[in-house]
Amino acid sequence: MNNEFIKQETNVTGEGYLPGLAIDTVIFGFHDDKLKVLILSYKDTSLYALPGGFVHTEEDVNEAARRVLFSRTGLTNIFLDQFYVFGDKSRYDASSLKTIMKARGFTPPEDHWLLKRFVSVGYYALVDFTKAIPTPDSISDSCDWFSLDKLPPLMQDHRQIIDKALQTLQANLDHKLIGFNLLSDDFTMGDLQRLYETVLNKKLIRAAFQRKMLGLGILERIAKKWTGGAHKAPYLYRFIARD
Amino acid sequence: MNNEFIKQETNVTGEGYLPGLAIDTVIFGFHDDKLKVLILSYKDTSLYALPGGFVHTEEDVNEAARRVLFSRTGLTNIFLDQFYVFGDKSRYDASSLKTIMKARGFTPPEDHWLLKRFVSVGYYALVDFTKAIPTPDSISDSCDWFSLDKLPPLMQDHRQIIDKALQTLQANLDHKLIGFNLLSDDFTMGDLQRLYETVLNKKLIRAAFQRKMLGLGILERIAKKWTGGAHKAPYLYRFIARD
Repeated sequence: MNNEFIKQETNVTGEGYLPGLAIDTVIFGFHDDKLKVLILSYKDTSLYALPGGFVHTEEDVNEAARRVLFSRTGLTNIFLDQFYVFGDKSRYDASSLKTIMKARGFTPPEDHWLLKRFVSVGYYALVDFTKAIPTPDSISDSCDWFSLDKLPPLMQDHRQIIDKALQTLQANLDHKLIGFNLLSDDFTMGDLQRLYETVLNKKLIRAAFQRKMLGLGILERIAKKWTGGAHKAPYLYRFIARD
Repeated sequence: MNNEFIKQETNVTGEGYLPGLAIDTVIFGFHDDKLKVLILSYKDTSLYALPGGFVHTEEDVNEAARRVLFSRTGLTNIFLDQFYVFGDKSRYDASSLKTIMKARGFTPPEDHWLLKRFVSVGYYALVDFTKAIPTPDSISDSCDWFSLDKLPPLMQDHRQIIDKALQTLQANLDHKLIGFNLLSDDFTMGDLQRLYETVLNKKLIRAAFQRKMLGLGILERIAKKWTGGAHKAPYLYRFIARD
């Protein structure tokens, strides 16, 4: 893990970074029929936050998002997309940034670049929970999965950022078929239905759901899941990526 | 129309504005079975551009987008939404900004804030062509509708911004039902189908389209369109806004 934040706090003018622009990432996972989000907690503070960071002057914003995600969580090669710009003037709260720096023994000057107004580009990521092993960076105590219904109090407007990311995930589940990024490579129709039901927060009719999914022509049936018994073993499916 | 740009160019440090953050708006209209976009041309240059601007330090980014749209085009009260952040480092091209300022008799210093790297938040707007009467601001010669298939060469990455806005419009036509913003209050099923066909750039089957639209439960049938003849006069519909 890098120590980019340490460079950022002693770099009081923000040299080498785009001023006033942040990145926040909402990383969704799916486990035990719950939708989960990855949350960092900052050392020696009671602050919980989304993994976030800043953009280098010599870097594309989308590139910065991938770098931030990797440096804060160790995750790479995952579905990651912009979903909204959080730009209300009321959103920025310098006090939490001061708390984080002070907990590290650094008292920032009042005109420190990190204490100014920031606009944040929200990204959401979808990961296969079974493959993602998040690891915290050097300024974080932990990097943990929290169920959406059991989130800790989050700093700044991070709770609203998660809510907006969830709305985007719900809206894109059908028309961009992004939900498959949350499943293992092989899954049963039941796994897929539980994912949809969890994200959309409503029950779906099994026959209609199965008909719809198979009708999309994007699933390959690979084998029966071995359950020990002979009967009623469910088929396994695999997503066929489309252009 | 305001003269905000004049204040911006003589304000060489960008005092009062968020640094490095721009707004660009893609304003779609629909007329004569063509999808159109509103383009400004800058006085005494051969530069064509999307209506755009910057964010005041005491203003929400979404608020700034409405102000920019109104000040550059005179349009207000229309569907306006964020769709993407254009943040590649290669996108910014200071030369076009220099040309615009020089055409106005102002030679900017090399460290002028407008010549630095900018990240732009893209917004798209959908207007009822029959009601929108765009009026150019003081630094623009004209503010005109161009068909998507007959766009002039545009400055910076504005052509890519339009392409991405069109993709968003296509993707959201069905699931957000935003297309109705492009029609007059009352329309025939034929008007609606031609809009969908134009945006999606494909022919649709009339019976299936009508069944789908009526099945959504969002259309109110109001009266027969008077055509002079007695037979085959099409029904007029109105969109019932939903929560």
